[in-house]
Amino acid sequence: MLRPMTHPARAAAEALDHARALDAADSLRSFRDRFVVHDPNLVYLDGNSLGRLPMATRDRLRSVVENEWAGELSGAWDHWVELPGRVGDALARDVLGAAEGEVALADSTTVNFYRLAAAALDARPGRRVIVTDRANFPTDRYVLEGLARARGLAIQWLDPDPIAGPSAEDVAAVLDDDVALVSLSHVNYRSAAITDLAAISERAHAAGALTLWDLSHSAGVVAVDLAGIGADLAVGCTYKYLNAGPGSPAFQYVRHDLQDQLRTPIQGWFGRRDLFSMGQGWEPEAGMGGWLAGTPAIHGLVAIEEGVRLVAAAGLDQIRAKSIALTSFAVELHDHRLAELGCSLGSPRDPEQRGGHVSIRHARARALRGDLAAAGVIADFREPDSLRLGLSPLTTAFEDVWRGIEAIHAILAAG
Amino acid sequence: MLRPMTHPARAAAEALDHARALDAADSLRSFRDRFVVHDPNLVYLDGNSLGRLPMATRDRLRSVVENEWAGELSGAWDHWVELPGRVGDALARDVLGAAEGEVALADSTTVNFYRLAAAALDARPGRRVIVTDRANFPTDRYVLEGLARARGLAIQWLDPDPIAGPSAEDVAAVLDDDVALVSLSHVNYRSAAITDLAAISERAHAAGALTLWDLSHSAGVVAVDLAGIGADLAVGCTYKYLNAGPGSPAFQYVRHDLQDQLRTPIQGWFGRRDLFSMGQGWEPEAGMGGWLAGTPAIHGLVAIEEGVRLVAAAGLDQIRAKSIALTSFAVELHDHRLAELGCSLGSPRDPEQRGGHVSIRHARARALRGDLAAAGVIADFREPDSLRLGLSPLTTAFEDVWRGIEAIHAILAAG
Repeated sequence: MLRPMTHPARAAAEALDHARALDAADSLRSFRDRFVVHDPNLVYLDGNSLGRLPMATRDRLRSVVENEWAGELSGAWDHWVELPGRVGDALARDVLGAAEGEVALADSTTVNFYRLAAAALDARPGRRVIVTDRANFPTDRYVLEGLARARGLAIQWLDPDPIAGPSAEDVAAVLDDDVALVSLSHVNYRSAAITDLAAISERAHAAGALTLWDLSHSAGVVAVDLAGIGADLAVGCTYKYLNAGPGSPAFQYVRHDLQDQLRTPIQGWFGRRDLFSMGQGWEPEAGMGGWLAGTPAIHGLVAIEEGVRLVAAAGLDQIRAKSIALTSFAVELHDHRLAELGCSLGSPRDPEQRGGHVSIRHARARALRGDLAAAGVIADFREPDSLRLGLSPLTTAFEDVWRGIEAIHAILAAG
Repeated sequence: MLRPMTHPARAAAEALDHARALDAADSLRSFRDRFVVHDPNLVYLDGNSLGRLPMATRDRLRSVVENEWAGELSGAWDHWVELPGRVGDALARDVLGAAEGEVALADSTTVNFYRLAAAALDARPGRRVIVTDRANFPTDRYVLEGLARARGLAIQWLDPDPIAGPSAEDVAAVLDDDVALVSLSHVNYRSAAITDLAAISERAHAAGALTLWDLSHSAGVVAVDLAGIGADLAVGCTYKYLNAGPGSPAFQYVRHDLQDQLRTPIQGWFGRRDLFSMGQGWEPEAGMGGWLAGTPAIHGLVAIEEGVRLVAAAGLDQIRAKSIALTSFAVELHDHRLAELGCSLGSPRDPEQRGGHVSIRHARARALRGDLAAAGVIADFREPDSLRLGLSPLTTAFEDVWRGIEAIHAILAAG
């Protein structure tokens, strides 16, 4: 903890000493050296929008393009076809707390979310309600609206406190035997609030509904225990804390016993049993293979494999511990340096309720983002008034947090 | 044309001389030097499965990964977001005969096909029939079966001559006011038969049906005139003759006046007006932007841009002329060297009816593929009995065709 402020300049200097002490004691500090960093002076606080490039991924991408594609040509498909399942298994084991054969990589988060939501609704015929959150990530809301519209279903919108997010009680209050599907994000994209998936799963299942979780903002930074919470379905993105690059494929999780009960609406050739027989009539491949659709994007898949390896090497417990330390430090600095300048915290104060980023609210947040970029600090803006600081444990130093907050202070103090 | 055979060995030698003369006169010959070739002795006749790596693409991929991703970080999205439309416009102009704003890159061919087929069916409520071809590419058949099943529709299967493919008359014979959608491939993946899209479009439209064409096996090798044939909807793949790499995104075409009449079933954030407002309620972005869904795969998109540039530099007329010469040479060699060994031609004899590959049928075709690979000739096998020779005009030499056919001859002659 920081000592109480005496004089602002002295407080800032003390906080910098503290940041440097935290960096010196950081057991994950050396991981930053495994990433390609062009400008060491740039303060990058947007790794939850696009994670940095790991050196191993740079090398692997060169190899997959210049050796495998150019050299093995179409023969490389003999091993490339294993990637969606093999990388899915690594992700299941090292990141998602799921079993072998429950996760596959495919398409975008949006397409995966559509596929699993549609399959869930098909499995609950007669039920007419989808439960989700007004503050949920946009693509999830939009996909659910499209499905509801096409099928004549209703969306029951939760509208909880924007910082705390929906509680199990909020969900329980709207559950009845007309609810087909409950879909929420594990970590909210703006506030970073962690949703209590275990408690909500239990309530949803008691009401006979299926659940679909979006893990985009937790995968790789907050431990996910899909088996432990009895999750039905989940999707998530790989270009944030898994560092797999712009537009890398997303993951989808279907619990073992549901894989054959549910059915994909997008019956593609990569999901068919005995793919290259190219026979008449679609029958699903066994397991997660049946949830694939088109030709997998190989560059993205190998990048995910490297990203998951890095997370596994660091260990999710260590990552989460550093993440809590980073966001707690940002909250302290906010309170000491920014609260007096019209800022307020847009994330939960309890670190157990908070994911890997911190939102700082200010009426001028949109303009602040541009001013910060001009000062060499990259953060993100989220409507209507949040400056979002993404603190990736493998690449963000405590001193980065200090420099980011001091840059905000300087801009706001200058008016 | 080859002169009539006298003695097999002499005929083969004469054919080789002829191949070399054709190569010497080939105006596109220098394009091969723009591709990364590891083993110059390998005869690669599978470029319609996975096109070779252009050097420009190798360099561009290094740059997008190592400079843009690693250096610009999330700021690169300021220009990356333009790629789906910008590359789509290049493809529309240089490859597909479509107008600016009618083509966008997104997802896989399978997902695009699903999206457009579903949108077409939504636009023809009350009509209960989808027309397609038993020999159509598997993923197209499977997706249509899934949509028909979910909506209680019927598929009217055409079952034409397997080499000639469906004619306008075949389609006309099953058209009535119950047909919602006619969907066929422009070039058949096995036989290479070219479908008369103009004539079929006219008949389909007269019956009030919409059309959805799969251009995967024509894009980049056979001129497509989407505007001229009055196409409604089309999709296609970019990793064949457009050389964009394994699992690169696919294209989708929606004719201008249909873009607002039809509606995507997958309402994702990248398809929403004012994407980063992340507001409540999905409204489509204007034009093809409204047909996007999730975060675009950037590696694949820049590779498509480079691939389209190469095709444009060569010129589709020149490419098609060389393609016809290549496939005609393969057919001649088949007739002279392979017909006597139990082979028969699985592609149309008339080059105007034939796309960029040639199928050679033989009872042992499956084993032949492996034997050829051992002999340094890469071709593909398609059930039940087709050896498929993909002859990419930018990278295949006439001597490659000769060497491929001679290798088949040697294997079959040895029993």
